[in-house]
Amino acid sequence: MSKPIVLYGHATGPNPWKVAIILEELKVPYTTKFIDMADMKKPPFEALNPNGRVPVIEDPNTGITLWESGAIIEYLVQTYDTTATITYTSSPERFYVSQWLHFQMSGQGPYFGQAIWFSRFHEESLPSAKKRYHDHVKRVFYVLNKALEGKQWLVGDKWYVHLVWNGEEELSFANDAIYSTIADLSFVTWDLMVPFIFGDDTGSLELEKNYPNYFAWNKRLMERSAVKKIAKEKTEAAAVHG
Amino acid sequence: MSKPIVLYGHATGPNPWKVAIILEELKVPYTTKFIDMADMKKPPFEALNPNGRVPVIEDPNTGITLWESGAIIEYLVQTYDTTATITYTSSPERFYVSQWLHFQMSGQGPYFGQAIWFSRFHEESLPSAKKRYHDHVKRVFYVLNKALEGKQWLVGDKWYVHLVWNGEEELSFANDAIYSTIADLSFVTWDLMVPFIFGDDTGSLELEKNYPNYFAWNKRLMERSAVKKIAKEKTEAAAVHG
Repeated sequence: MSKPIVLYGHATGPNPWKVAIILEELKVPYTTKFIDMADMKKPPFEALNPNGRVPVIEDPNTGITLWESGAIIEYLVQTYDTTATITYTSSPERFYVSQWLHFQMSGQGPYFGQAIWFSRFHEESLPSAKKRYHDHVKRVFYVLNKALEGKQWLVGDKWYVHLVWNGEEELSFANDAIYSTIADLSFVTWDLMVPFIFGDDTGSLELEKNYPNYFAWNKRLMERSAVKKIAKEKTEAAAVHG
Repeated sequence: MSKPIVLYGHATGPNPWKVAIILEELKVPYTTKFIDMADMKKPPFEALNPNGRVPVIEDPNTGITLWESGAIIEYLVQTYDTTATITYTSSPERFYVSQWLHFQMSGQGPYFGQAIWFSRFHEESLPSAKKRYHDHVKRVFYVLNKALEGKQWLVGDKWYVHLVWNGEEELSFANDAIYSTIADLSFVTWDLMVPFIFGDDTGSLELEKNYPNYFAWNKRLMERSAVKKIAKEKTEAAAVHG
């Protein structure tokens, strides 16, 4: 039994909760410490992360202190996912996992973050800036929807067979080794922010109609017990600390 | 001798040039194909990358097609840097390399990119949005400057000794295994955009005075032959195609 990892997080920020999902998936013990925004960009927290942001982890089992959620997730699977339950160690799959993780880190998180900023927090209303980032968020839906055509998960399930049962043809997956990975799981917590980004306009996105593959994939992810648990905790933490 | 990798790039976009630096460092043969912005978000290019962006690589030696510059860089070092000349395979160093690569991908590239957008391309002048991203760029300088205190490179050189020579004390590095890695090299091509972001205000940044560790580190990087070569090619390509 490993000693609990310390996860520095925040009640509402999506990136620490993203790490929490991975810790839950891997059943790695951890404790969460919430840091107030006002305390992030100064000592003592800045000594843990010169970028003054969460998440940061401290792992007493290896002595490592690490920040950047993408790097933390890679560390966790390389250290604790020894049977590769939520990643791939085979090639080319492991490089595709890295590709989607980097897209989440550079293409989803920052744009969703700017969309939140100009929708909710900027000092003045700037409709053209807000529109820019709302459009970027929709583009992320488009990219994921396109990549998921005929697939359950972003990486791994490219082999499928047609099963015929009682005369009904059904698409099924031939490869037992198909499963969701950190490539999929890393998108969840920013996706939870969509109603906060679009507010009253959320319904008009018509996600199920316009991005059906994305919508179904997101639903599959939300049904996982680790994701359900963290989504609930995030909602509760936001109500108390948010 | 491996067959040349195809690198899909763009004359002015920093991310493909970032990959080119790594290919040069590793002496991996490659050919560059420039894609016009107008052709990125539609077939046939969109079939290579559903995100409709460069860089993308096609490696005939492994059959892989890969996008996201961070993932491409990880692929290149894992496939072609078998003696770890610009990365680490030891722990914890390899996780710190990943941390800084993710910071570059999520914390430098996107913010520098937004700073360029609101300084140069947005449909209307929005001073408060421009200021937001100029401040973010300066914050990246601050974070790097802080992290580089007493260090040559972002990862690896934490052991140093004081040498005394003719009564002069000098800080020197005790570990032969200290070298620049993809953690450092990945920042270069966005840093080259700083004058484009700040225009006439670039001088008032006073980089050497305000961020001396960052400034010296950037200078060390710019002296590497691979970086020199690509910086020159980038300038020439921008003059012809930009």
